[in-house]
Amino acid sequence: VTPGPCFEDFDLGQVRGGHPPRVLTSGDVALYLAFTGDRTWMVGPDTHQPGPVHPLLLFHLAFGQTVPHVSANARANLGYAEMIWHRPVEVGEAISTDSTVIGLKENRSGKDGIVWVRSRVRVGDDVVLSWVRWVMVRKQGTARTPWFKDPVRPDLAAAVSPTALGTPPRAPSLEGARQRDYAPGDTIDHPARTVVTTAEHRMFTRHALNNAQVHFDETPDRPSLVYGGYVWSMAYAAAYSGFPARTGIAAVNSGQHARPVFAGDTLYAQTRILAVDRLDDGAIRAVRCRLLVGRNQAPDPQGESVVLDLDFWERVAT
Amino acid sequence: VTPGPCFEDFDLGQVRGGHPPRVLTSGDVALYLAFTGDRTWMVGPDTHQPGPVHPLLLFHLAFGQTVPHVSANARANLGYAEMIWHRPVEVGEAISTDSTVIGLKENRSGKDGIVWVRSRVRVGDDVVLSWVRWVMVRKQGTARTPWFKDPVRPDLAAAVSPTALGTPPRAPSLEGARQRDYAPGDTIDHPARTVVTTAEHRMFTRHALNNAQVHFDETPDRPSLVYGGYVWSMAYAAAYSGFPARTGIAAVNSGQHARPVFAGDTLYAQTRILAVDRLDDGAIRAVRCRLLVGRNQAPDPQGESVVLDLDFWERVAT
Amino acid sequence: VTPGPCFEDFDLGQVRGGHPPRVLTSGDVALYLAFTGDRTWMVGPDTHQPGPVHPLLLFHLAFGQTVPHVSANARANLGYAEMIWHRPVEVGEAISTDSTVIGLKENRSGKDGIVWVRSRVRVGDDVVLSWVRWVMVRKQGTARTPWFKDPVRPDLAAAVSPTALGTPPRAPSLEGARQRDYAPGDTIDHPARTVVTTAEHRMFTRHALNNAQVHFDETPDRPSLVYGGYVWSMAYAAAYSGFPARTGIAAVNSGQHARPVFAGDTLYAQTRILAVDRLDDGAIRAVRCRLLVGRNQAPDPQGESVVLDLDFWERVAT
Repeated sequence: VTPGPCFEDFDLGQVRGGHPPRVLTSGDVALYLAFTGDRTWMVGPDTHQPGPVHPLLLFHLAFGQTVPHVSANARANLGYAEMIWHRPVEVGEAISTDSTVIGLKENRSGKDGIVWVRSRVRVGDDVVLSWVRWVMVRKQGTARTPWFKDPVRPDLAAAVSPTALGTPPRAPSLEGARQRDYAPGDTIDHPARTVVTTAEHRMFTRHALNNAQVHFDETPDRPSLVYGGYVWSMAYAAAYSGFPARTGIAAVNSGQHARPVFAGDTLYAQTRILAVDRLDDGAIRAVRCRLLVGRNQAPDPQGESVVLDLDFWERVAT
Repeated sequence: VTPGPCFEDFDLGQVRGGHPPRVLTSGDVALYLAFTGDRTWMVGPDTHQPGPVHPLLLFHLAFGQTVPHVSANARANLGYAEMIWHRPVEVGEAISTDSTVIGLKENRSGKDGIVWVRSRVRVGDDVVLSWVRWVMVRKQGTARTPWFKDPVRPDLAAAVSPTALGTPPRAPSLEGARQRDYAPGDTIDHPARTVVTTAEHRMFTRHALNNAQVHFDETPDRPSLVYGGYVWSMAYAAAYSGFPARTGIAAVNSGQHARPVFAGDTLYAQTRILAVDRLDDGAIRAVRCRLLVGRNQAPDPQGESVVLDLDFWERVAT
Repeated sequence: VTPGPCFEDFDLGQVRGGHPPRVLTSGDVALYLAFTGDRTWMVGPDTHQPGPVHPLLLFHLAFGQTVPHVSANARANLGYAEMIWHRPVEVGEAISTDSTVIGLKENRSGKDGIVWVRSRVRVGDDVVLSWVRWVMVRKQGTARTPWFKDPVRPDLAAAVSPTALGTPPRAPSLEGARQRDYAPGDTIDHPARTVVTTAEHRMFTRHALNNAQVHFDETPDRPSLVYGGYVWSMAYAAAYSGFPARTGIAAVNSGQHARPVFAGDTLYAQTRILAVDRLDDGAIRAVRCRLLVGRNQAPDPQGESVVLDLDFWERVAT
C-alpha cells in the first residue's frame, strides 16, 4: 500500500487536503510551452507580466496536489464532470487544492470501491477551478464495510451551463486569429500528429508532480504507460489549428481516458462541434466541443482506437 | 492554405504585425541553457537579476512572432542579411515584432513568389534587434498578378559595418576566458559533436512557437525535420570553445540553411575567421566569422555536407 | 589541454574562483522538478515566493561554477567529504563559488596528480554550502615538480557531526508525510526505477553548466556517459518514497561514483540506515543514510553493480 488513503479512509462530506501551496511560475509556463507548443496562452499582456497561466497547466498542477489525499491508491481514474475554470490565474499566484467526498460505492469484489470527490483549487479565498472526478480506490482489507450497503452516488449535471462559465482571460490579438463560424455537426480534423517520446512524457508527468511509478517503468518489451493528462494537453494543443481565436478551455462536461497510451504511440485528434452558445446579438459566447483522440489512427468512436473522449466548452474571442 | 498571408497579400511598404508581446522570462533562459548548454549568457550580473537574454534566444522567440504575419505559407526560408542586435534585452522585458515588406518578386511558375521583409523587434519604443529575410511564399491563385511585372529587390549590404554594431552586454569575468588573438584565415574546429534527439529538437522548436508540422511529423522510416534555428543555436553553443571571451553574436551578415537536418543526425561545427576589426589602440572590437556546420561529417564548403553557412560578427571581451 | 588549470597551476592555500554569480530562478526550479520529480522541495511557502531551492539543485549549479577553476582538466572525480548545506537558499538569490587548495599529491606516473579543494558557495557574504572534493588533474608536462615530493593530504572528518548541520528549511505539511521511525540497520528498497534517456541526462547536464564532452559524445555502439550528478539526483528522488517527511539532504559524509553509467541504463536505489541522531526528548534530528545505486540490478555492495555510494545526513520533519 502506497502512503495515502485507502477506500476505508473516505467518509461522506469529509474535506481532504494538506498539500502545500504551489506558486505558479514563469518556469512552469515556459516548460508547458516546450512540452505542448500550445499557443492559446499567448494572450496579449498589457503589462510586463507573463500573463495568465494556461488552463490545462493550472489543472495538471492542481491535480497533482490531490493525488496524495485522493488517488495515491487508485486503481483507475474513471471520469470527470462539472469542471469549471472560474477565473484566469496569473504567474506568481499560489494554488491550494482540497477535495470533498461526495459519493462512495463499495465494489462487489470487496477489494475496492468508487470514490467521488469535488476538488476545489483556491488562490487565497477565491475558488479558481473546481471539478468532480471519480476513481476506483483499493481497500486496505477485504471484509465488507457494512455502512457502505447503501451506496451514495452524487447527482451530476450532464453538462455545465454556458451561463455558469467563468471570466475569460483577455482576448488574444493575434493577426489572422479571427473567429470563424461553427455549427453543430461540424467535424474538424487536426493535422498535428504527436509521436510520444519517453523523455517528453516523463518530464511532463514529473513536472505535474504525478509520480505514479507505472508512467516511468519500462522494459525492452513494454514501453512506459503515458499519463492521461499528457494526452489531454497534446490533443488540446493540436486542436488549436481549428480554434485560432480560442481563449482557452472553459469547462469540461465529461471526460474519459478510454484506453491506455504508451511511449512510441502516435496521437490523432479530431473535434466535433456539439453546440454553439450565442449571445443575444448572435455573437458566439462558447462552443461545445467533443475532442476525440485516436491511438495510431484517426479516432473512431465506434471502433477501438479512441483513447480520450472529452466533452467541453471552448471560449472563442469575438 | 494555412491561416496567414499568401503572396498576394503582401504589398511594398506594408507593415505587418499583430502578434501579442512576449515577456522574456527566467523560465525561457533556463530552458535555453538546458537545450544548448551555451555559457555565453553567463555574463556577471551586478544585481540579483538573471541578466541579459542570450541573443539567439531573443532571435528565436522574436522570429516565432513573425511566422503568422510572414511565413505561415512559406515554401522555403531563403536567407538572412543585415541582422543587428542593437542592445541587450533583459529578463522581464516584453518584445513585439513587426515586419515591413521591402521586396517582392513573383516566380515564373505563377505558383509562388519571393517576399523580402525587414523585421524589427521592439521593447517599448526601442528597436532591440532587426533583420532582413527573404522567403518563398505560395500564392492563393495561379493567375499572374500584373503589378508584379517589375519585381522589386531591395539593396542589401554585403556585410554589416562593425561601426553599426549595438551596445554589447556587460563583459564576462569568467576566469580563463581571456581574449585570444584571431587572424583572418584561421580555422577553428569545435570539438563538441551534437547528436540531435527527437525530444530535444521538438521541445526547442515548440518553445520558440514554431509550429510547422514538418518538424513534428515522423514515421519509422523518416525522422522529423529539424528547425534550422536549432542547428544554428547548437552550432553556436559548440563554437564557445573557440571564443571563451565572447559576449554574444552581434550581427549576421548573411545566413543560409543549405541542406536539411533530421533527428538522429550528428552536427559538426567549424569557424573560419574572415576579418578582425580593431580599435585605434589595436584591441579587438569584433571578429567576423564564418560558422560552417556539417551533417554527419566535418563541414566541407565544396562538398555536400554543409547544412548551415553563417557569416557574422562576434564581440569578444577585451 | 582544455582551457583551465593543470596540476602545476595549483598551490597550497591558493583561492581559485572567478565564475560570474548565477541567480537561482523559478525556471531552474521548474526544470529540476521536470528532470527528477523530486517533491522534497515542496515545502509550504508562507508567501507567494516559490520558496527554497532543492539542496541538490543548489549543489549542481554551484558545482558547475567550480569546473573552470578546478576540474576542467580532471581525469577523474575521486570523492567528496565534509559537504554541509548551511542554510536554505531561495529563488532570486545569486550564488558565487570559490575553491581553496587544501591538498596536493603528484602521482608516480608524472602525468597527473591529486588536488584536494574546499569549495564554498556564497550568497553575498553568507557561506550557504561547502564541500571538500578531490580530483585527479592532468599535468601540462611530465617532468616531476620537485616541490611536490612531500605530498600534503588534508585531515578530513570521517563524518559531519550532526550538531554541525545547518538551518533546515521550513517543514513540509504534506498530509500523510508524517515521520516514521528509523533504526540503524534498516534497509529500504525504493520502488522507483529510472531508465536514463539521452535527452533527459543531457539537458540536466547542460543546465548544470557541465560541458564535459564525454557526456554528449555517442556512437551507435557506445551510448553517452552520464554525469554522476544526474545519478545522484535521480536516486535521491527515488529515495523520497522512504522519507516522505524529509526536508532535504543536510550533509554528505562521503561519496563516490564507483562505476560509470551510460544512457539506456536502469538505476535501482536502496537506502541503509546507518545512525539516528535524536534530540534530548527522543525526537529524531537527523538520520544518517547510505544511499546505494545499482546499474541494471539492485545494488550489492560486495558485487559489481554499485555505481554510487553516498553516506549522508537526512533531515526529517518531526
